[in-house]
Amino acid sequence: MDWTAFLIGFSVMALASLAIYATGSKQSPARHHTLLHSVVPFIAATAYLSMAYGIGTLVKADGSATYFARYADWSITTPILLSGLVLLAFHERGRTGEVGGYLTSIIVLDVLMILTGLISSLAEVPLAKWVWYGWSCVAFVGVLYLLWVPLRAIANSRGEEIGTAYVKNVGFLTIIWFLYPIVFLVGPEGLKMINDPASVWAFLVMDVIAKVGYAFYAASNLDKAFRGHPDISPDDRGYRT
Amino acid sequence: MDWTAFLIGFSVMALASLAIYATGSKQSPARHHTLLHSVVPFIAATAYLSMAYGIGTLVKADGSATYFARYADWSITTPILLSGLVLLAFHERGRTGEVGGYLTSIIVLDVLMILTGLISSLAEVPLAKWVWYGWSCVAFVGVLYLLWVPLRAIANSRGEEIGTAYVKNVGFLTIIWFLYPIVFLVGPEGLKMINDPASVWAFLVMDVIAKVGYAFYAASNLDKAFRGHPDISPDDRGYRT
Amino acid sequence: MDWTAFLIGFSVMALASLAIYATGSKQSPARHHTLLHSVVPFIAATAYLSMAYGIGTLVKADGSATYFARYADWSITTPILLSGLVLLAFHERGRTGEVGGYLTSIIVLDVLMILTGLISSLAEVPLAKWVWYGWSCVAFVGVLYLLWVPLRAIANSRGEEIGTAYVKNVGFLTIIWFLYPIVFLVGPEGLKMINDPASVWAFLVMDVIAKVGYAFYAASNLDKAFRGHPDISPDDRGYRT
Repeated sequence: MDWTAFLIGFSVMALASLAIYATGSKQSPARHHTLLHSVVPFIAATAYLSMAYGIGTLVKADGSATYFARYADWSITTPILLSGLVLLAFHERGRTGEVGGYLTSIIVLDVLMILTGLISSLAEVPLAKWVWYGWSCVAFVGVLYLLWVPLRAIANSRGEEIGTAYVKNVGFLTIIWFLYPIVFLVGPEGLKMINDPASVWAFLVMDVIAKVGYAFYAASNLDKAFRGHPDISPDDRGYRT
Repeated sequence: MDWTAFLIGFSVMALASLAIYATGSKQSPARHHTLLHSVVPFIAATAYLSMAYGIGTLVKADGSATYFARYADWSITTPILLSGLVLLAFHERGRTGEVGGYLTSIIVLDVLMILTGLISSLAEVPLAKWVWYGWSCVAFVGVLYLLWVPLRAIANSRGEEIGTAYVKNVGFLTIIWFLYPIVFLVGPEGLKMINDPASVWAFLVMDVIAKVGYAFYAASNLDKAFRGHPDISPDDRGYRT
Repeated sequence: MDWTAFLIGFSVMALASLAIYATGSKQSPARHHTLLHSVVPFIAATAYLSMAYGIGTLVKADGSATYFARYADWSITTPILLSGLVLLAFHERGRTGEVGGYLTSIIVLDVLMILTGLISSLAEVPLAKWVWYGWSCVAFVGVLYLLWVPLRAIANSRGEEIGTAYVKNVGFLTIIWFLYPIVFLVGPEGLKMINDPASVWAFLVMDVIAKVGYAFYAASNLDKAFRGHPDISPDDRGYRT
């Protein structure tokens, strides 16, 4: 039953948020990745609590459900995960404008991808559903392009250890994120090949991998990479304390 | 009557926005605090104008009102006030990633605190109301933890004057912010121990203290702290002008 | 017919997004302006697609239409364009706090200008419509003040080439942005002096100038200005690559 899945989602995410913070590095430059990765499941926990209470859940004319809480969750959590990757690519050395330009463009594409996915879920006319699904995929291609082409080049220019950690983390997220449009496509919001409970459980497993599994995997890659790059920034060094 | 309170709120906030900008420091590094503190009551003025016109005001089945404009106001103004504290803790020297990590996590917790408070206000079943109120308090504890533990340590590492100004400003906001969940709890959205007009006036007084009173108090603390730290950043110094 | 205008808007904006990215500079410090300017018409394309499908279009009691997609588009695209100007004024050298303070205050005023414009569009009582229109104009004055007074002074302090590029870009945007409240005023959301199709086509032409024309104009000014300022930041220089 959906309710069970939602309560499991809430509990796992709430505990994972604490666990990621408790076990994560508190030393610069890894500590803000700890913060970002630990706040992501806190948001997901709140979304699962909403779904457990039916808040923001719309049952449409054809009997399929659209969970607005999911899309709200993704609109905030995926930008945070992308921000961690952008910061890593610049190895915490990018200037405000540089980092801001990449953050803004990748987050805009990412949020439009999610928003147009939501419109696709709500569309009743098949043509409209697939036009919006297609436009959502265009935005996804834009996100992947920025991650794998310009940002990967920047990460590689920061040294081999940073480049390796960046590619590992982006690779993990790319694979798991590819499953989302596929489960959407075959699920009740798309071709209706699997039913609502199957889709709910599939998203639960994917959310735990993409948010909790990723947090621990990324932290271990970052720890390895930063070991070779002690944090001596011009700002911290030599500033009166 | 509510209408009087809303018009007073609009007028006080609009004038305070101008006064905070006019009297505030225009010298770096204090000038962006002047901007942040002066835009906060401009947002509040807009929210009070909405409430005066009944825009975003929902009267529920039990006769109690939920003012969406309040929650929208708080969702923007409290992150701005928190940003000022985070920037102060890093004494304007944090790198994009560091500052961004703290800003993102504290703002996410803060906005979830407000959003779950809104869900609690709208909930009709008592159990749901208190579950959401409780989860909102969990997020508030997270905000307070970040302010008082890691960020206070960072502020103290920036020198005694900065540490002192930080603790004074956080102390002021912590005390006044504690009153909000209490007034919510006893008010018409919670236990209904006080009625709607009493709650409206209480929030008005608290808003003026938390937004206008705080702006002047914080500015005087910042002026004292920055007097001992003239602004010679590596970026400004020696750059061709 | 509106539908034709919306499909033209979608096609022009989608192609312009690709063209701006393809022809724009990929070298720091101009490359993040390329990203920002190219993501803006991608957002507009999505908004025009929504309007073509009638998503977020509200036909009011008096027969006039409010297009929510427009206001959503403007709420994201105008802050991005303003961000480019703020970054230029600091010539990519501002510290996180400085830039963040200006970005936050100008974006808040800008978004409130758009949001109160939307409220004005929806208001049925004439007095309310003009109070909200007036408050929206107050916010617009705030945006113009920040652009033309403190930010222009900062841009000028960064050297003559930067100052010149800044004034040209702000001048272009100021003129085209002034047309929006005028078309709103005479259109079906205001005084109803022109009808809905005329207003739709006027906004289409203005959107193309403000988003696509501006992108190419701004890029050429930036290229000229940055030619005299090779990008050797303390962060990039001397960092192991």
